Amino acid sequence: MAKNTDTQVADVVVVGAGIIGLAVAWRARERGMSVTMLERDASGRGASHVAAGMLAPVAEVEFGEAGRRALELGLRSAGMWPGFAAELEAATEKEVGLRRTGTLVVARDDDEARELERQIAFRDSLGLRTDRLRPSEAREREPGLAPTVRLALEAPDDHSVDPRRVLEALRSACQSAGVELREHAPVARVELDGSGTRVIGVALGNGEHVEARQVVVAAGAWTSQIEGLPEHARVQVRPVKGQILRLRDPAGPGLLERVVRFQGGYLVPRGDGGYVLGATMEERGFELRPTVGGVYELLRDAHELVPGVSELEIEELCVGLRPGTPDNAPAVGMGALEGLTWATGHHRNGILLAPLTAELVAQELAGVHA
Amino acid sequence: MAKNTDTQVADVVVVGAGIIGLAVAWRARERGMSVTMLERDASGRGASHVAAGMLAPVAEVEFGEAGRRALELGLRSAGMWPGFAAELEAATEKEVGLRRTGTLVVARDDDEARELERQIAFRDSLGLRTDRLRPSEAREREPGLAPTVRLALEAPDDHSVDPRRVLEALRSACQSAGVELREHAPVARVELDGSGTRVIGVALGNGEHVEARQVVVAAGAWTSQIEGLPEHARVQVRPVKGQILRLRDPAGPGLLERVVRFQGGYLVPRGDGGYVLGATMEERGFELRPTVGGVYELLRDAHELVPGVSELEIEELCVGLRPGTPDNAPAVGMGALEGLTWATGHHRNGILLAPLTAELVAQELAGVHA
Repeated sequence: MAKNTDTQVADVVVVGAGIIGLAVAWRARERGMSVTMLERDASGRGASHVAAGMLAPVAEVEFGEAGRRALELGLRSAGMWPGFAAELEAATEKEVGLRRTGTLVVARDDDEARELERQIAFRDSLGLRTDRLRPSEAREREPGLAPTVRLALEAPDDHSVDPRRVLEALRSACQSAGVELREHAPVARVELDGSGTRVIGVALGNGEHVEARQVVVAAGAWTSQIEGLPEHARVQVRPVKGQILRLRDPAGPGLLERVVRFQGGYLVPRGDGGYVLGATMEERGFELRPTVGGVYELLRDAHELVPGVSELEIEELCVGLRPGTPDNAPAVGMGALEGLTWATGHHRNGILLAPLTAELVAQELAGVHA
Repeated sequence: MAKNTDTQVADVVVVGAGIIGLAVAWRARERGMSVTMLERDASGRGASHVAAGMLAPVAEVEFGEAGRRALELGLRSAGMWPGFAAELEAATEKEVGLRRTGTLVVARDDDEARELERQIAFRDSLGLRTDRLRPSEAREREPGLAPTVRLALEAPDDHSVDPRRVLEALRSACQSAGVELREHAPVARVELDGSGTRVIGVALGNGEHVEARQVVVAAGAWTSQIEGLPEHARVQVRPVKGQILRLRDPAGPGLLERVVRFQGGYLVPRGDGGYVLGATMEERGFELRPTVGGVYELLRDAHELVPGVSELEIEELCVGLRPGTPDNAPAVGMGALEGLTWATGHHRNGILLAPLTAELVAQELAGVHA
């Protein structure tokens, strides 16, 4: 490898400037490290840009040991969000759209109601705070729900944030703090020292070498395209396609106050008349087009559950690629080589887990082991 | 009015450069007239840009005297299309996508089948060539149709053309022929001579005067926004909103060969794997946003009729404004003032009626009365 001995070597190179990369860079810079971010596209145009922004560890908890671990991470990070948001807003004077309105999970028929009863009992057994709502109670809270709703679970502590606002604030915070952000600079491979045990930087697609004491891979769905790591040191990440619609109520806010989740999707109100309706889960590689089937099913379900959506305008059809590891659990922390740290594979939970991931990774980069 | 005696006065000013205005300008220029087109936006970005391009006078014929008149115009213009397309393609070396594959009108349930029987009998009574197809016959012709189809009418002479290609060819033909096209030049009003009986030109939004011996108003849905005409000389045109989806089959062409029409919409194959799915009919003024309700219903119907559309990609959600007169019949021909000619109000049939409208208007401008 050609050595650029006359250029300064960054303490940290972060590969990928989505919400995870930006949050990591910001926190690392705050601890005094020099940070360079390398982004293949424009910053924050991947999964973070499309994400709905639900902070919903309770609504999303799954059965089994993996579910238990995900819950623990999710609750920790959800607990950090108010402080993270406040700090970010104070640093940038930009609002990030954190809305503490809670979440309703609704069942539309007997089958879904039976399943939801089981989910309520499961959350009770974990000591999680939820409320079981009869149809009339659910519709009292959200009059926009269809009369066909059979049962609902309220998770009063599952909130939401506006990912696009968070990205804008994080970019601003990184810039003010002196993080170097290089966009349209795709990383082709990680580079190792002669012994093959230590990461010493990365090479860009155009052949340029960027040296660093430590490399953080926050490349989301593109993680596995980065070459240069020996087999045992790799993390496998695949893209999981999600189609989402961004809607707007020309009459302003008010159709829904809370996040509403249902089997197959969700509606997230932004508080300004904007709504996000998501999302499909598809294994289609790097295919980025919205499809008739995906959009149709989302519209059908939303229409059935909240008939008033009929009048909403469609502002955008978006497709994002969630980064999924083989077990769909995030890869966060020290890698198998010295100087290599992972911050990827957050699947459906990149927004939720950003504050915790940033904190854990920054600690590790600083050599602090909590 | 300020006279620009030092500038040349055009023989004809055409207000509006959609498919009607362009076709009129081309035909008028061919007859030797000097022609200036004034377009409020960019040329061909209004209803023509969104249109599906069905040439379907037989499938669309309606009961009553007005329907009979519309049929007559439609059949005449449909008969002109092959020659018009050939001439345009020869003049420009651009394909316009005329596909002679015929149209199926399908019924999905008993009610629709009864109504379709009535429609078939009506067409028989008019001597129009159609075929009544049993479900198996319809699915033999179009295997993409759902097994639930109950009955179909085939209109073998109802074809389609690609309006965006036609627009491109017409722009090119006009340019080659020496038509002056001024875009982003909105006409504010028609200007009259001192007697108030003769049109002498138009004034633009910026105050500029454009003189002309004759003025053709081909302003589509924006016709009624043009001021300066006395009450008795006006034509009332309102916008009729239509939502349309442009779809693409990643597997290429073949899902449908013919235009398929159903109650509430249609699917038009372009022959290259592209499809147009339309359209809503809404009275919403100049509102140009796609809505959840409109898109949902189109997707639902298409999905039910041609299940294979599920895999198609959504390339565009488009909204167009059809120009509708009070009786929805086009306003074509001499106006109530000398020097004023109408070529507007084509509602759902602007593409179909373009060749005939252009011919009739050009004849009138030339003083030929056939």
